[in-house]
Amino acid sequence: MSGIVGTPRHPITAQVVASFADAPPRLREVMSALAEHLHRFVVDVRLTPEEWRVAIALLTATGHITSEERQEFILWSDALGVSMLVDALEHDLPPGATESTVLGPFYVPDSPMREYGANIASQPAGDPAWVSGRVLTTAGDPIAGAELDVWQNGDNELYAVQDADAPEEHLRARFRTRDDGTYGFIGVRPVPYRIPSDGPVGRMLQATGRHPWRPAHIHLIVRARGYRTLTTHIFDSTSEHLDADAVFAVKPSLLRAFVRRSADDPAAPPGIAGDWYSVENDLVLAAGTAGEPADDGRTA
Amino acid sequence: MSGIVGTPRHPITAQVVASFADAPPRLREVMSALAEHLHRFVVDVRLTPEEWRVAIALLTATGHITSEERQEFILWSDALGVSMLVDALEHDLPPGATESTVLGPFYVPDSPMREYGANIASQPAGDPAWVSGRVLTTAGDPIAGAELDVWQNGDNELYAVQDADAPEEHLRARFRTRDDGTYGFIGVRPVPYRIPSDGPVGRMLQATGRHPWRPAHIHLIVRARGYRTLTTHIFDSTSEHLDADAVFAVKPSLLRAFVRRSADDPAAPPGIAGDWYSVENDLVLAAGTAGEPADDGRTA
Repeated sequence: MSGIVGTPRHPITAQVVASFADAPPRLREVMSALAEHLHRFVVDVRLTPEEWRVAIALLTATGHITSEERQEFILWSDALGVSMLVDALEHDLPPGATESTVLGPFYVPDSPMREYGANIASQPAGDPAWVSGRVLTTAGDPIAGAELDVWQNGDNELYAVQDADAPEEHLRARFRTRDDGTYGFIGVRPVPYRIPSDGPVGRMLQATGRHPWRPAHIHLIVRARGYRTLTTHIFDSTSEHLDADAVFAVKPSLLRAFVRRSADDPAAPPGIAGDWYSVENDLVLAAGTAGEPADDGRTA
Repeated sequence: MSGIVGTPRHPITAQVVASFADAPPRLREVMSALAEHLHRFVVDVRLTPEEWRVAIALLTATGHITSEERQEFILWSDALGVSMLVDALEHDLPPGATESTVLGPFYVPDSPMREYGANIASQPAGDPAWVSGRVLTTAGDPIAGAELDVWQNGDNELYAVQDADAPEEHLRARFRTRDDGTYGFIGVRPVPYRIPSDGPVGRMLQATGRHPWRPAHIHLIVRARGYRTLTTHIFDSTSEHLDADAVFAVKPSLLRAFVRRSADDPAAPPGIAGDWYSVENDLVLAAGTAGEPADDGRTA
């Protein structure tokens, strides 16, 4: 409890902490600290019964809006900076390894496996973008057979799970790196978007005068046996809102240039028509164990 | 932020607090303090991504088990002592006023109005108990027309909302005090019970080695125009678990004796057959405004 000095403890806090005396050590530590900090929050702001009721109602509404396709609890964690804080504490990365950032509320497991070069847009969704690079060790060696799990929004701002008019598998896919560690696929240039504003988190943002915008990005999870699983973004380095991401997830090392290319550029990959963009992004994995189960808090 | 001294703030915390700079003053205070304390909790215990996922999954499960009849978020608040803490901070009561305690997760609004002396048990539910007393001002004057909203469990431990075999209106009712401030009804002697253990709170209690028992009690809300609404219990003064209530809600001033009476006791009220109990409980309201809306966080 190193962080707690100052305000004397309320007697009720002592009772609650004592109730965890027989818990296994780590659970005792976590639950006791949760009670200490939650109680100190309540005491510091002198939370009123009416405010407590509003909090219960907000949590209840959060629970009821949360589904297979919508994870409003993760959105709270993101919007309160908790997701990035957990990420920051965990990631004591070796030099050169790619930094991580939030998972976000729109991840859907089991995206379709696709081949090198495939187009992940099932329907028109903006300016085509060739996204490519290598998955590497911190020593610079290629990692063959690594899995890239990618998802992104289209120029209507929406992810497929938010968009009734889009096929389920629109703008999401999994790929395996080739023997030389390379990957490549056709996506679209992502656009800034607003985090969902029709739920409790949206009400909080509006009530507090916060904007809901996130800078443009593509999501990636990279998994390979013998390496720590990496959850990250490619941020468009010229996007708006990079300095004020609604979920505090921008790290300068994750910014990449989307380079404009003309229709007749000889490097145009098969399947692209008209003007396009390219973005290069190597992903460097830290050695370790995956350790991250597929369960991300969604309930069946 | 008087309560926060010690551990240096994480840079992410500063970003999140700054994001609330334009909120209305009270909301800025509450949200900033929430971010500060939540972040310090995460930093103090160095919450791991896996623990974060467990927390998201628990909150998600809490949301999904919460319904019209089941309020698992209130149960968390109760089981973590937050409900009693909010209660303790709010209630700066004048001398002599009856103390308050938790609402609990089983309150159902709009119980049927019943007449003085009515039996609230729709079916056999334990030893009959004559519950009576007066609603009074702190000066000792009777308050006529005050509303008593009562609910309790039966000897199967269950509240009607938990019990598929009980009519909806079993063991719950509203009464108005008579001109002399008196109320009286036939309930049953309450029994200790376990808070629901089939949801996330139950899993927490089991994992931490905490017991789920609450001492025997009857719930009351008393409402009268011109007085502060009182949410309280009558605790059976001889119950087990008075020294270790799972929700930390016992206050010594709320203990009352359930007096055993024989079937031929001349004081037996109409409608009681066999041996019975009586409990006397005056309820003293503090002057003020009701200020407590009926909304208790349940969603429609």
